[in-house]
Amino acid sequence: MFAGLSAFPLTPMNESGIDEAAFVRLVERLAGAGVDSIGVLGSTGNYAYLTRAERARIVQLAVQHAGTVPVIAGIGALRTRAVQELAEDAQQAGAAGVLLAPVSYQKLSDDEVFGLYRDVTGTLSVPLCVYDNPGTTHFTFSDELHGRIAGLPQVASIKIPGVPDDAEAARARIERLRAQLPPHLTIGVSGDALAARGLNAGCEAWYSVTGGLFPQTALAITRAARSGDAHRALQLSGRLQPMWELFRQYGSLRVTATAAELLGLAEAPSLPLPLKTLAGSDRQRLAEWLAEPALT
Amino acid sequence: MFAGLSAFPLTPMNESGIDEAAFVRLVERLAGAGVDSIGVLGSTGNYAYLTRAERARIVQLAVQHAGTVPVIAGIGALRTRAVQELAEDAQQAGAAGVLLAPVSYQKLSDDEVFGLYRDVTGTLSVPLCVYDNPGTTHFTFSDELHGRIAGLPQVASIKIPGVPDDAEAARARIERLRAQLPPHLTIGVSGDALAARGLNAGCEAWYSVTGGLFPQTALAITRAARSGDAHRALQLSGRLQPMWELFRQYGSLRVTATAAELLGLAEAPSLPLPLKTLAGSDRQRLAEWLAEPALT
Repeated sequence: MFAGLSAFPLTPMNESGIDEAAFVRLVERLAGAGVDSIGVLGSTGNYAYLTRAERARIVQLAVQHAGTVPVIAGIGALRTRAVQELAEDAQQAGAAGVLLAPVSYQKLSDDEVFGLYRDVTGTLSVPLCVYDNPGTTHFTFSDELHGRIAGLPQVASIKIPGVPDDAEAARARIERLRAQLPPHLTIGVSGDALAARGLNAGCEAWYSVTGGLFPQTALAITRAARSGDAHRALQLSGRLQPMWELFRQYGSLRVTATAAELLGLAEAPSLPLPLKTLAGSDRQRLAEWLAEPALT
Repeated sequence: MFAGLSAFPLTPMNESGIDEAAFVRLVERLAGAGVDSIGVLGSTGNYAYLTRAERARIVQLAVQHAGTVPVIAGIGALRTRAVQELAEDAQQAGAAGVLLAPVSYQKLSDDEVFGLYRDVTGTLSVPLCVYDNPGTTHFTFSDELHGRIAGLPQVASIKIPGVPDDAEAARARIERLRAQLPPHLTIGVSGDALAARGLNAGCEAWYSVTGGLFPQTALAITRAARSGDAHRALQLSGRLQPMWELFRQYGSLRVTATAAELLGLAEAPSLPLPLKTLAGSDRQRLAEWLAEPALT
């Protein structure tokens, strides 16, 4: 489950609630494309902005509409207690795995983060992916801490925030981390602009924002890299350069939500306030680029 | 209300819930000491870790037990919708004012933060203090943005994260900010280690973690500074140097919660997991220091 393309769909929403019909359409689109797993309630799925009941509902809908594709559910929250409740909800709804980021308000220590994963995996029945995303959690894992957490029961994968933009440096980064991990753990790359680089460097999975909206494109990149055609993977990724530039400027969530609105896959507004999608000339630029045949 | 010593009590809690009796004792202690306001559900009050119902209950308890001291309630949350609900709850419970930090998971833009304050103040009946705390929100206000937000209805004060540790630099910092603000706004300092410096530099208020547990000590510092005795304020603050050092190492929340446990004002554990209070030699060091007569 924690290998290949894991596609992370948006959770389209507005101030009244979740747009369930739009979410179901996104999930069905991913299942139809044959992605390897569907990661709901990731950062792209706006898990941090939803209530417990809304999150349980999203996992239920995803499992109902994902066909045979396994569903991985984000269970991150500030309190250990809340994470445990969310894990229970996700399992009851049929999630095949869970994804846990050490979300913080108070800056966390290594021991506190280890304690979080220990307490949560202690009562967990499905495999867990460690979600390392310092840009949103403001916690930076050391490789040594990854190694300690990797020894806990149910821990099966690590979602890393990205790799250096150089083939050798990327490979060295993955090897350094892998040296700390039991052999059964997979490493998955995120940070879509450098995902091809990460896959080429030996990551088994791509935890992909882009795959949540453009599954065929992300599958083509993943398959090229995983079959050893590193050049082709980079070439395909390079076609998305205009999108990677917007990702850097606005964050991948705002850009992907804007694209979903422009493509008619979500109604505007699709993000929870105070978050806003792109406006003005950058929205126009994205619309023009989406009209080109680079994406499917 | 947004002047003098605003004391921020802990919300003692464990995995089962809030310790209401301990919270009420802390509030009554502050009211008895004659602080100028009580700021519940600040970062010290662990607002980010509590449910909506728990937060409403805390405001109710504080108002019931604060006597004539005005209660300011933290209403920060990731979603504008949630902030508006919390504002409504706080007002219904009798809060005299609210405190709002631009809490983030996705990094926020200036326009998004302005939109948050505009939307929330648009339906607010009590005064609001802007809570500028980049260490926990990961959002950095420009003085220009403070100026724009200060022009919104109900905005009455700004809680700044600290001042430089130099009398002239601190004064220049406050003057630079004040130049952007309408004259009715007050500026309150936090970052307790340099609070005396901030008060001496012209801040009208101290939004104080220390004041939530040691109100007499914090009142003495505040009164010395506000009466023009800058030297005395610094001297009193200097006595707390051992605590400031622990604040820097562990964050003020963990140190204050540990102190409350050691003083019998809260049962251990008093913080929500994964957060932990101090252990080992640093806990011991704090215990020994608390036994000295520097604090009241």
